[in-house]
Amino acid sequence: MRIGAIEAGGTKFVCGIGDENGQIEDRISFPTEHPDLTLPKVIQYFQDKQVEAIGIGSFGPIDICPDSPTYGHVTTTPKPGWGNYDMLGTLKRVFSVPFGWDTDVNAAAFGEVKWGAAKGLSSCLYYTVGTGVGVGVYSEGKLIHGLVHPEGGHVLTRRHPDDHFAGVCPYHGDCLEGMAAGPAIEARWGLKGHELPVDHKAWEIEAFYIAQSITGAILLNSPQKIILGGGVMQQSQLFPLIRQAVLQNLNGYVSSSAILEHIDDYIVSPGLGQQAGLCGALALGLSARENHIASQ
Amino acid sequence: MRIGAIEAGGTKFVCGIGDENGQIEDRISFPTEHPDLTLPKVIQYFQDKQVEAIGIGSFGPIDICPDSPTYGHVTTTPKPGWGNYDMLGTLKRVFSVPFGWDTDVNAAAFGEVKWGAAKGLSSCLYYTVGTGVGVGVYSEGKLIHGLVHPEGGHVLTRRHPDDHFAGVCPYHGDCLEGMAAGPAIEARWGLKGHELPVDHKAWEIEAFYIAQSITGAILLNSPQKIILGGGVMQQSQLFPLIRQAVLQNLNGYVSSSAILEHIDDYIVSPGLGQQAGLCGALALGLSARENHIASQ
Repeated sequence: MRIGAIEAGGTKFVCGIGDENGQIEDRISFPTEHPDLTLPKVIQYFQDKQVEAIGIGSFGPIDICPDSPTYGHVTTTPKPGWGNYDMLGTLKRVFSVPFGWDTDVNAAAFGEVKWGAAKGLSSCLYYTVGTGVGVGVYSEGKLIHGLVHPEGGHVLTRRHPDDHFAGVCPYHGDCLEGMAAGPAIEARWGLKGHELPVDHKAWEIEAFYIAQSITGAILLNSPQKIILGGGVMQQSQLFPLIRQAVLQNLNGYVSSSAILEHIDDYIVSPGLGQQAGLCGALALGLSARENHIASQ
Repeated sequence: MRIGAIEAGGTKFVCGIGDENGQIEDRISFPTEHPDLTLPKVIQYFQDKQVEAIGIGSFGPIDICPDSPTYGHVTTTPKPGWGNYDMLGTLKRVFSVPFGWDTDVNAAAFGEVKWGAAKGLSSCLYYTVGTGVGVGVYSEGKLIHGLVHPEGGHVLTRRHPDDHFAGVCPYHGDCLEGMAAGPAIEARWGLKGHELPVDHKAWEIEAFYIAQSITGAILLNSPQKIILGGGVMQQSQLFPLIRQAVLQNLNGYVSSSAILEHIDDYIVSPGLGQQAGLCGALALGLSARENHIASQ
């Protein structure tokens, strides 16, 4: 089986071909420019690939409500050319195959459920902490869409007592993204994350904010697994700090051995590593193909 | 059709009989005492009612994982006699009918989807703000269970700048329940909520905490409707304060007309009023009956 996968990121696009086992056979990557430059490259890549379906996990916000007149569009992004851009429609006009379409983080969550760290589970959360913060939500065997789609990177935060940084989110100032995404780290400390020593105070503060949002998500959704990806999470010293802070925050309230005894297996890195996004898009494509066949 | 419904609250039990249209034909209520006193009253009530199924929406925490050896138990409550009590099993041993079993707030969310304020929607959140704070979560057409079940009343809060109250949650101090449930209002102001004037500062602070948790829930789950029930929400002056604070918190980030233009229809009272809990249990019973028939 040959399924197309598009990881449509705000910084770069990754396109690939994979199969029903989550194996990526071929991939290509290029920077995200104006859509009039970027989409032709996507189309060119898939032109001779003879895929049976294509899955897209996209940066957002995007319209994923099938009944909406702007379904398939990137909506309110400030990225030049991408606001109200019909990404899905542009591709559908060229390729007559079933399409899967969801947020990049929902796609990654889906890939992790299918082949990664949440394999076989009926729920998980996928956080990406990088240039921004995004959260994919999978519950009771389904990706959560709802009114628009999850935007869990912007939850409000309680401030770390030693942190007087104002936050960089243009909408909310000191929301999670405003306090903990890569640009917040750089603005707070004057150095990029990877330039800070692993025992720097920055990481305790970073873990404080991430753990706080995870605590809230555990309480609200009770996920069976929490997966933390993205550039900032390459700093592996964050994981024990986050796990410890989550345990402190919950203070034994959620009586589950998965949390109380096995938190090292509960809050984890992506099982698919750097491929989580592309494999997630592949999983969306595969699912679109299955739905298409079932509907015939 | 005759379906039994049990709203198993921490303060009182309500039992009733209803039909497939959500109509309650008969009901009885008694205080929640030791289970050895309370469950016999439940059994006595249903003994001659010839119901086809029974739905239970229970105070918690409870075990709602069907594979668990303690499925159907109330788990870690400090209420005398109820810790590790097998409520579902006790009733199943007497009545040979299909049983629905979920948290009181999930039940209420389900009832509101079936017959109330979220009728026909595929997602909603149901908050109860009373002696405690609980949140029921319905997403993509399903009640959310996950690892344990949602406990959204205990999300951490950012403090109101004028509020120096320590919070009353024995686990988390100043979590949402610790800051905004009925006992927190009384401890903070020395008066019960219904004794405070409607223009008292208490309501702005109350709305601040509730709105903050709703903001987080909108961002994480993107529900199509938010329903606020429970004793504290009888203070109807809270609704406009909460809606305004949610809009301020989101600051236009979630680009949906349901929020930006129609928030009066987005954050609402229970459509089923004081019957939300019992109707929710009825809906669980109805669903259990349907699942039982489908599985035969």
